[in-house]
Amino acid sequence: MERINEARQALLEVSVNLKREKIPVEKAYGRVLAERIMAEMAVPPFRRSAYDGYAIRSEDIREASRKNPVTLKVTERIPAGSIGKHPVTKGTAARIMTGAKVPEGADIVVKHEDTCFTDTEVRFFMSAPGGNIAEPGEDVKQGICLMEPGKVIGAADAAVIAGQGMGQVRVFRKPVVGIVSTGSELVRRGKHLPEGMVYDTNPMLLAGYMQSHGMIPREWEIVPDDMEMLSDSILRALAAHDMVITTGGVSAGDFDYVPKAMERIGAIVLFHGLPFKPGGAMLAAVKDGKVILGLSGNPGAAAVGMLYVGLPYMKKLCGRSSIHLTKAQAVLSEPFGKSSRGIRILRGSARIQEGRLMFDQMENQRNGAVWSMMGCSLLGEVPAGNAGLLAGETINVYFI
Amino acid sequence: MERINEARQALLEVSVNLKREKIPVEKAYGRVLAERIMAEMAVPPFRRSAYDGYAIRSEDIREASRKNPVTLKVTERIPAGSIGKHPVTKGTAARIMTGAKVPEGADIVVKHEDTCFTDTEVRFFMSAPGGNIAEPGEDVKQGICLMEPGKVIGAADAAVIAGQGMGQVRVFRKPVVGIVSTGSELVRRGKHLPEGMVYDTNPMLLAGYMQSHGMIPREWEIVPDDMEMLSDSILRALAAHDMVITTGGVSAGDFDYVPKAMERIGAIVLFHGLPFKPGGAMLAAVKDGKVILGLSGNPGAAAVGMLYVGLPYMKKLCGRSSIHLTKAQAVLSEPFGKSSRGIRILRGSARIQEGRLMFDQMENQRNGAVWSMMGCSLLGEVPAGNAGLLAGETINVYFI
Repeated sequence: MERINEARQALLEVSVNLKREKIPVEKAYGRVLAERIMAEMAVPPFRRSAYDGYAIRSEDIREASRKNPVTLKVTERIPAGSIGKHPVTKGTAARIMTGAKVPEGADIVVKHEDTCFTDTEVRFFMSAPGGNIAEPGEDVKQGICLMEPGKVIGAADAAVIAGQGMGQVRVFRKPVVGIVSTGSELVRRGKHLPEGMVYDTNPMLLAGYMQSHGMIPREWEIVPDDMEMLSDSILRALAAHDMVITTGGVSAGDFDYVPKAMERIGAIVLFHGLPFKPGGAMLAAVKDGKVILGLSGNPGAAAVGMLYVGLPYMKKLCGRSSIHLTKAQAVLSEPFGKSSRGIRILRGSARIQEGRLMFDQMENQRNGAVWSMMGCSLLGEVPAGNAGLLAGETINVYFI
Repeated sequence: MERINEARQALLEVSVNLKREKIPVEKAYGRVLAERIMAEMAVPPFRRSAYDGYAIRSEDIREASRKNPVTLKVTERIPAGSIGKHPVTKGTAARIMTGAKVPEGADIVVKHEDTCFTDTEVRFFMSAPGGNIAEPGEDVKQGICLMEPGKVIGAADAAVIAGQGMGQVRVFRKPVVGIVSTGSELVRRGKHLPEGMVYDTNPMLLAGYMQSHGMIPREWEIVPDDMEMLSDSILRALAAHDMVITTGGVSAGDFDYVPKAMERIGAIVLFHGLPFKPGGAMLAAVKDGKVILGLSGNPGAAAVGMLYVGLPYMKKLCGRSSIHLTKAQAVLSEPFGKSSRGIRILRGSARIQEGRLMFDQMENQRNGAVWSMMGCSLLGEVPAGNAGLLAGETINVYFI
């Protein structure tokens, strides 16, 4: 576990070059905030009526009762968005709508359904000490900090920014991640498939997770098992993207050229090979300040490697302030029979059953199967040296 | 509760006019699938080597042991993506790479690390019954159904589609929802704010939730409290969108023109007013086969109304097959002191603590506050006739 944490940490120590852009607030949902949002304005900005009713002086109805109602003169009608013409004085009332500014002099708005009224007069049947007026700054005090940079802008965040009157907001540019697939057997979808070859699935799989985390994935190219071509492709991909991911060619096979390509292009390797399965056959390197993550060629293993080890760095690259994996404990709904010397990562999905987080394993946990990732929303962590797990046991899980 | 279920049902009975479009698979993440995806191709499509090693006849090494190793002649080398030139015959072996097609005759691939080898010979030290070969269709049998229409395309789904060689996929067009804000006090962000007026926050709030559920929100216009202008705006919005949402003007105030506008434009009202707070002051109507959802002017109430009642219909409008609210039970982390006659909807967020789903209430549960929705990912349902809840009590919650 220590080596895995060190690997994550080594990635996080690579400094990121965040770029900002100003965008309209209506485009801001899901983006990462790049500025501090201060309350330039108190909310509400004025004494705001909470109801449709009558703005009066509470003093005037102190003696009011069913038996001895108090009648006040209605001087005006204040729709929301309008300003009253007169202050409320002894013996008078202003008809006022929800959201309108309460005129001076009034310390209470009595709901209209608690009164009897005509256009010119309104009658009250009980006393009240004041109320139904939202004071300026009651929701938000002027000058407080509403949001810090690094926050992912949610629906309400965008609304709060709009409520301050801002038409635009500064966000971090989404990082663009280039994906290089290595393997002479790979063909891009939509093309003819010669015998002995298979369609490449890794870019689509990794791209989906990147998108869900706020990155722009870009399929760079499929490179055959040739060291020179691979080195060249990675160099060009590095120049064109904020980060590069390769799939395949990272373990110890005859054609596993990624480690050799790192050497050739002069990238500094941060780590190569981590003690977990599937996906531990991965490497990370840095060149020109940019990270290259070399993942397994097996889809399930590639996705686990990227998410389990690479995700904190990738969140940092998005400008996010909260970058660590979201960890929880979950109950295994089915046994996991395989024993394992190292850490084993199970692919699964989350389900709440009677208030408990359940971990449902994907049917097919085979390394190579892209199917093992269908519907996968959780990674489950089986500790090293485990002889297998029973249904009902609790494991650490990570939301991905 | 029955009236609320009936309201959801009434909306679901409005037939939706789904439009399809064909898009590149790389754009499909998060979209709703509009076709059935069949396995045109078995996966793997051929007998695939699971390792780098030697493809041989297991018969040939039946007698192999440490003491009496068996040596075979290496006839060729088959990289992934290539086809062997010869079948494997008695006494021969083919060097083969992970992912390559296993030549005829061979029934086992022995991992290279379990052998001693030169370019021309390979030596085996133990017998093995066969294996390390993935048979055609082992992962996916040809002809099975991989995905049904109505599924939201996840990362692995897109990869599975790509793995079938498809370059394009048919999805449902995202529905476009027009948002009409009503209220003479409202000003759009980025504009000057006259005294007594406030910035409109509802469109941004609702738009964020719409986007997260796969719709395209469009701010239509801010309409002052004027019945004719409102009716006209709704009619134009209906013509331009798949659904229209209004905020404000839906309860019983002097300027609550939405119900009157429904009458005026000849819309059929499905329901008006539901027994929950906040947000129950809402209506739904149908005109020209399109739904108009009239929500409260208070942001928190508007969002609760849209999500708690309108979301199933809105998911249906996206073409999704799974449309019901995602319900679970959660434990209240703090007491909720207020008693309530009707159903009360609390805004909160989800947290897993020791494997249990916790409901953390938003600080400010006031109807009007957009802040009450910041970070809100769960709606908690306090049953009608409740005297308040203690910390540790369990309530029904809905993921939004």
